[in-house]
Amino acid sequence: MEVDLDSFSGRDWETPTDAAPVRFAMVGLGWWTREQSIPAVENAEHCTTTALVSSSTEKAEDVAADLEGIEATLTYDEYADGVASDAYDAVYVCTPNGFHREHVEAAAAHGKAVLCEKPLEATVEDAQATVDACREAGVPLMVAYRLQTEPVARRARELIRDGAIGDVVSIVGHMSDTILDSVDETSWRFDRDLAGGTTLNDIGIYPLNTIRFILEEDPQAVYARTESEQPAYDGTDEHGAFQLEFPDGKLASCTISHSATVTSSLRFVGTEGELSIEGLFFPNTQKVLRVSGPDIGGEFRPEPVDQMREEFDYFANRLQRGLDPEPDGEHGMVDMRAIRALYESAESGRRVELDP
Amino acid sequence: MEVDLDSFSGRDWETPTDAAPVRFAMVGLGWWTREQSIPAVENAEHCTTTALVSSSTEKAEDVAADLEGIEATLTYDEYADGVASDAYDAVYVCTPNGFHREHVEAAAAHGKAVLCEKPLEATVEDAQATVDACREAGVPLMVAYRLQTEPVARRARELIRDGAIGDVVSIVGHMSDTILDSVDETSWRFDRDLAGGTTLNDIGIYPLNTIRFILEEDPQAVYARTESEQPAYDGTDEHGAFQLEFPDGKLASCTISHSATVTSSLRFVGTEGELSIEGLFFPNTQKVLRVSGPDIGGEFRPEPVDQMREEFDYFANRLQRGLDPEPDGEHGMVDMRAIRALYESAESGRRVELDP
Repeated sequence: MEVDLDSFSGRDWETPTDAAPVRFAMVGLGWWTREQSIPAVENAEHCTTTALVSSSTEKAEDVAADLEGIEATLTYDEYADGVASDAYDAVYVCTPNGFHREHVEAAAAHGKAVLCEKPLEATVEDAQATVDACREAGVPLMVAYRLQTEPVARRARELIRDGAIGDVVSIVGHMSDTILDSVDETSWRFDRDLAGGTTLNDIGIYPLNTIRFILEEDPQAVYARTESEQPAYDGTDEHGAFQLEFPDGKLASCTISHSATVTSSLRFVGTEGELSIEGLFFPNTQKVLRVSGPDIGGEFRPEPVDQMREEFDYFANRLQRGLDPEPDGEHGMVDMRAIRALYESAESGRRVELDP
Repeated sequence: MEVDLDSFSGRDWETPTDAAPVRFAMVGLGWWTREQSIPAVENAEHCTTTALVSSSTEKAEDVAADLEGIEATLTYDEYADGVASDAYDAVYVCTPNGFHREHVEAAAAHGKAVLCEKPLEATVEDAQATVDACREAGVPLMVAYRLQTEPVARRARELIRDGAIGDVVSIVGHMSDTILDSVDETSWRFDRDLAGGTTLNDIGIYPLNTIRFILEEDPQAVYARTESEQPAYDGTDEHGAFQLEFPDGKLASCTISHSATVTSSLRFVGTEGELSIEGLFFPNTQKVLRVSGPDIGGEFRPEPVDQMREEFDYFANRLQRGLDPEPDGEHGMVDMRAIRALYESAESGRRVELDP
């Protein structure tokens, strides 16, 4: 095995530079930004928060009151107009999905690098426009898949790439949480137009994207079934199960729910062994990686990292080094098309093929 | 919690009687009967093997040579004609699926109780005829779902029934083995007419039936995708992924393969906790049950039981007590219809609803 499991949580992507920290404008100050992203950047090495953008100056100032180093508190309109754009180098967009496009387009217009939450937008068309705006403006766009800088996911990818379990044959995954413990039913997450969907869109994307990341392949066809039991989910999806078909007959089967105990699991079964990860999809929790194969076997419980801090530092360190961060917009578009196909499938009860 | 985890592997179904051991005719002497079923009955408390039935007298005599207490070695024709039928009380049928019906009908004609391997037959029609023959003759028919007398599956069912994890929302399962290590590609298992299908039929039935057993509910609709990579699987299924829709929005998502490492896993996620079992579907291996919920949490590694011995002893003890053994033929028919629907779905790429 080539995989270095002694430095399990090492930052294999990091190269320190003399460059100044990347200064972020946080666009959208909902609970995820306040409770996860801002604290992550406070603890980060390569970036800092210098601007806050929200629906009102008051809301931005309220959040700024608890922080050091904020140079600008802006409304969305002021941000769009480029007010105080010298105060930040890059933009983190974490608003309702259906508003991503306008905020990313504004960043592109001001020449700012963009870290945009996933999914990219509420529709494939708006997501494509978002990607196009960055490409045309020549600004880097990274989609905020925090699992791609999670050490456990990176080590799993390396182990599988090195053949630790032979050829992958089957993948099973699950993610669930109780979203109504974090937001109430008036949240945009239950508004299909603003969100683009609910559970498949919001947490189905974790197993979908992480399986793609670990396999280094994209799905060719999908199937999904969704269910809604509680009134908050009328017209959208509360629970789901979906399949992804990968090249060479590899099949992935997943379940998700926004109304179950907080848990996640992901398992890759190969011709010569298997690899499973407990707790992978949650940002600060203990992960357990178990692997068994002809040349390796064991259980790893690495010290948890702050996934958001790793993601922000990775993005910033890439900018400091003059490199484009990944996963980029085209990578995010694959998920946008897959999610659209999953909802089409749930509607029709039919398998849906994805264009290569 | 009402579940008695101190006597984890106790035989909750057992009531000793003064009745003589049930004498079995073993019909079909393939590797499973020779390597699993006959040794299980040698170690059993409530039954014994007294007759062996095979394609030739020589084959039956070869197997008999290593055993004590065999009173009759019969060809299938002799068995069908009722030769030496006083030498046995019950029949265990373990032949290619497509021959179950004729052997069970013979047993019914001779008034013998039947333990028939799963799936019941190669087609729904022949399975129904098999069930009807036993009902009309008034002989008990049990389908050989060995998981239903596996203590870990029984304790899982009790925990879930008692609400240990709240209401079940999602189920994920996997089973794989390397069948070509046990049989060669001339095996009837690769002959769709004789088997009724390959991987979905042969091992998909384990998660399918065990989820039904633990939930105490039947699927209402299904979807499946199958894949074949190796030449032995031309025209049949090597790998698969399938979904089962249970009442109240519960969704199960499973993967299976006959060409991957030997492993199995089954996980139930509920509104208040989760329960997972490693290794459940294999007959003599270490199982690990993990459960977490508001009133219980822990990992159980009970001493493995011989699943086939438990199954034979259960069946025999029920007969000794004058009771019909379960799961019965109607229970097996639900799987027959589900498997037919799974193959229809794999063919059409569409969700298939099951008649209530």
